[in-house]
Amino acid sequence: MSDLSRVKALTFDVFGTVVDWRTSIIRETRKLGARKGIDIDWESFVDAWRGLYQPAMAKVREGRRPWTKLDDLHRESLKKLLAEYRVEGLSEGEVDDLNRAWHRLDPWPDAVEGLTRLRREYVLATLSNGNVALLVNMAKRAGLPWDAVLGAEPARHYKPQPESYLMTADFLGLAPPQCMLVAAHNHDLVAASQCGYRTAFVVRPTEYGPHQRDDLQAEHDFDVIAGDFIDLADKLGC
Amino acid sequence: MSDLSRVKALTFDVFGTVVDWRTSIIRETRKLGARKGIDIDWESFVDAWRGLYQPAMAKVREGRRPWTKLDDLHRESLKKLLAEYRVEGLSEGEVDDLNRAWHRLDPWPDAVEGLTRLRREYVLATLSNGNVALLVNMAKRAGLPWDAVLGAEPARHYKPQPESYLMTADFLGLAPPQCMLVAAHNHDLVAASQCGYRTAFVVRPTEYGPHQRDDLQAEHDFDVIAGDFIDLADKLGC
Repeated sequence: MSDLSRVKALTFDVFGTVVDWRTSIIRETRKLGARKGIDIDWESFVDAWRGLYQPAMAKVREGRRPWTKLDDLHRESLKKLLAEYRVEGLSEGEVDDLNRAWHRLDPWPDAVEGLTRLRREYVLATLSNGNVALLVNMAKRAGLPWDAVLGAEPARHYKPQPESYLMTADFLGLAPPQCMLVAAHNHDLVAASQCGYRTAFVVRPTEYGPHQRDDLQAEHDFDVIAGDFIDLADKLGC
Repeated sequence: MSDLSRVKALTFDVFGTVVDWRTSIIRETRKLGARKGIDIDWESFVDAWRGLYQPAMAKVREGRRPWTKLDDLHRESLKKLLAEYRVEGLSEGEVDDLNRAWHRLDPWPDAVEGLTRLRREYVLATLSNGNVALLVNMAKRAGLPWDAVLGAEPARHYKPQPESYLMTADFLGLAPPQCMLVAAHNHDLVAASQCGYRTAFVVRPTEYGPHQRDDLQAEHDFDVIAGDFIDLADKLGC
């Protein structure tokens, strides 16, 4: 492990790294389906919803549309998929509520305990593509002890654009090497590293369900590689 | 008291409302003075430092200089005053540390208990002219339980510019009438109210020392008027 004594803040990718979005969203869609008598393959629906995540952000990243917060991108994707899957009879209020399922994601079982330990030694901040309201509501429901809710929206740039990492460090009053990104995704850590961040890979082998093929291991020489947040706290001496 | 059932988030002015900046900064300057053998009127020095706060922000508000975070404005004012008061022999590191006294302000005695009660019912966010790092470091040291650290820096506009209030509500995913500003300053609450915020005045009669003349009472028809944060929690039914 390289010298990490300069690190003052741990910044976290959230979807998949801190919270199990897939299980949570499938549960919410099934609950709605049962209540409304809508019988479709909700797992496939949820995977398709997440499948539209990167293309939706790409338009913003590439300047093909102005800054748009993730709640709004999620809702546009949801409307498109509801039409594709021929789901009818949902009021706008019900669509809103389903969209806000992303505010009600459950943390991985080790997340709260690990964060609570890490927080004794470090400033903990989100560095997520989720918008502030989504992250604040999620944290309040799940008990995630952030010191600051930062990331794409305050930086007005979606990861992996360098501005998202650089402005997050700047908001924290730190140089990039004083910040570590904790993430379950190789590409995110590589982008952070290119901005000068320290990096910690935490493996989340079922983020994409039982047949996940990517991000099953660290593919680069990250500063820390951990099995979960408890292991991360152990490895950082917290 | 008007109908406040729509209010979801309480947003807080911080300097003077949550923390007793004057006592804290005087203590820090005196400590440094004793250590370095510098014998000046530190109360006057601190009042002069705070006196440069509004003029420094005015240049940013009026577009006479680009966005500059409060830590940097504070430091420029500090350097100017050290010269004026003929304080010599401080290293740049000592000046930095003194400037960061604004990160180490003590809360008013009722603040943590009141915020802890209010947090059960509301999202709590800063809406301060302090920069994010200043507010995060302050909160960590003082135990201030913010759900989100927002305000001038993420909005890139200093209060009382409307953008600071409007963008804070937008970050929280709320309409202004779903947000309440809690502040010890009449002018801040008036500006927030003009943006559609609900308002709570909390009196802090010694913020500016024993001879304070302004903001000794609410001068407008605010939604709530409270003696301290415990009283505010009582009045909001928390």
